[in-house]
Amino acid sequence: MKKHNFSAGPCILPQQVFKEASSSILNFNNLELSLIEISHRSADFVAVIEEAVQLVKELLEVPSGYSVLFLQGGASMEFLMVANNLMKVGGKAGYLDTGAWSSKAIKEAKLFGDTQILASSKDKNYSYIPKDYAIPSDLDYFHCTSNNTIFGTQIKAFPITDVLTVCDMSSDIFSKKIDVSKFDLIYAGAQKNLGPAGTTLVIVKDEILGHTGREIPTMLDYKTHIAKDSMFNTPPVFPIYVSMLTMRWLKENGGVSWIEKVNQQKAELLYQTIDNSSIFEGSANIEDRSTMNATFLLTNTELEEEFNKMCTNGGINGLKGHRSVGGYRASMYNAMPLESVQALVEIMNELERKG
Amino acid sequence: MKKHNFSAGPCILPQQVFKEASSSILNFNNLELSLIEISHRSADFVAVIEEAVQLVKELLEVPSGYSVLFLQGGASMEFLMVANNLMKVGGKAGYLDTGAWSSKAIKEAKLFGDTQILASSKDKNYSYIPKDYAIPSDLDYFHCTSNNTIFGTQIKAFPITDVLTVCDMSSDIFSKKIDVSKFDLIYAGAQKNLGPAGTTLVIVKDEILGHTGREIPTMLDYKTHIAKDSMFNTPPVFPIYVSMLTMRWLKENGGVSWIEKVNQQKAELLYQTIDNSSIFEGSANIEDRSTMNATFLLTNTELEEEFNKMCTNGGINGLKGHRSVGGYRASMYNAMPLESVQALVEIMNELERKG
Repeated sequence: MKKHNFSAGPCILPQQVFKEASSSILNFNNLELSLIEISHRSADFVAVIEEAVQLVKELLEVPSGYSVLFLQGGASMEFLMVANNLMKVGGKAGYLDTGAWSSKAIKEAKLFGDTQILASSKDKNYSYIPKDYAIPSDLDYFHCTSNNTIFGTQIKAFPITDVLTVCDMSSDIFSKKIDVSKFDLIYAGAQKNLGPAGTTLVIVKDEILGHTGREIPTMLDYKTHIAKDSMFNTPPVFPIYVSMLTMRWLKENGGVSWIEKVNQQKAELLYQTIDNSSIFEGSANIEDRSTMNATFLLTNTELEEEFNKMCTNGGINGLKGHRSVGGYRASMYNAMPLESVQALVEIMNELERKG
Repeated sequence: MKKHNFSAGPCILPQQVFKEASSSILNFNNLELSLIEISHRSADFVAVIEEAVQLVKELLEVPSGYSVLFLQGGASMEFLMVANNLMKVGGKAGYLDTGAWSSKAIKEAKLFGDTQILASSKDKNYSYIPKDYAIPSDLDYFHCTSNNTIFGTQIKAFPITDVLTVCDMSSDIFSKKIDVSKFDLIYAGAQKNLGPAGTTLVIVKDEILGHTGREIPTMLDYKTHIAKDSMFNTPPVFPIYVSMLTMRWLKENGGVSWIEKVNQQKAELLYQTIDNSSIFEGSANIEDRSTMNATFLLTNTELEEEFNKMCTNGGINGLKGHRSVGGYRASMYNAMPLESVQALVEIMNELERKG
């Protein structure tokens, strides 16, 4: 049976990526050696990480003056690295609080200095994106989370600021065009649109580093990794390799402008189904709805058992909502074909007819 | 041609591990989904990480009161985490300096407090292990590196101390029996005897944590990861899975006591060849020689070109020495069969006859 993988992350990646990754575990580049048994300093692996960096630059049109890094520790490690590298001694930062990930980022920043919450949607269980808040010009930086997997909201227009702008794009990077020049630091755990769990992408404007007056441990200092092209120590070879393959797939198919259209089609189909339904309703504010993660509920919870059964029988995987929202969450990352959303929508419509 | 992989790390793993890992990338546990596209919170992956922890406990006979963690960032991240978690505010630590990795650990500890180098073999390019040094009883902890990949030395008898003992066992863990109860914290980057690059094993005695008077960022605090069974955030799924497979292989074949004998056989064969040779010589102090990494030189450097060619023709891979020692380095980790060392030794003997 064809599986439709709506998992929130780690998540679906292209089938051709799985095939090539599987083959490279046995015999990489016809070396008669596995990808994961060769030195990370070998020419064969150095070519992988260099291609990965190049693909990030191409796909996102990264301007000169920025470095592209592949690190470890996920967005959670970036929460503290960002503050450690950008918050001046005695300085302050401003955060937009749009959900669980923002809140965790705020917690780490507080260890390093005055951390102000400029706006929050906590009052309505993070079901919307705050707008029209002020960003003071004396902040060391402003931080926001572009897409909130748990709550199904997404920033559609980033605020214009005159301070450094940092964005956690873990769950929507590569899903749509972004203007990298408007940001000073972007980070993203790989395990959504980029690759498998185990590496973190960082895009950082070089000139913003080194101005805090702080002593930073070697591994937490972005300058360490810039100086060594992400090879200060042994990098996570396999996650970087699979990320590179996924970006190759994206480029071959038309890049970010192509996938942006596909992602819009998928999201529109699902949200229209929800909005036209008398038994389902969306849980996020309509104008802030995420194209990546659609959160919705059954208005009559007695239908849940039947819906869950129909999903299982239809090969729909990973649809359970996060405990803090309940209901359902359909994650429709880049590698998910329209066909999978169609399969889900058919089941939703069938339940509507029955119910 | 059969390849003999002497790479210092990432390095050889068992062939059956590559086969199973390759297959799981396409279809894991007959889910018709890839291992790397399922949620890390799914029952199927939770079973993987639980088995990995259990195998560490079984294979190393970890006593109760210790936690086993799979983290990210390699030993380099542990250098700072150890100091951050164990050095008291205003406290001090003692380090044994046996090479590049010890030196890097010392550098990070200095950011957190008084860091004393109790003994060093830097005077002879780290070609030996210092003995008979005092370990003051007022230290917060003592730190050593069990095996030095670059210099080919290994601690054969750990000092007896009355302070907390921390050991970086990145390059010889699982290669021989150790008494875990003699240590308070052991850490190891996976990419030698445990698995592929991308995860770090930590074995820590629970009661030693939380006594520094220091505020520790969430991701750097061992207590965070203990409380969440290494799943505070998305773990490096694939590296942990392959580590689990490698430990299964070790257990099936007879565990650490079995591999210790195999490793001794391999090391004896190579070191005997070096010692009986008139053209090769070892670069490490004989009594401190590592069973994992044998470093040696050609006394007549004019023979290097011929030896390199013979190695290439014989399928010998990854034998180049580290730039700070020169010559050759044969890494003979757990998954390397005796047959590969025999292949190398035959080439060395052939050159001896020719030379």
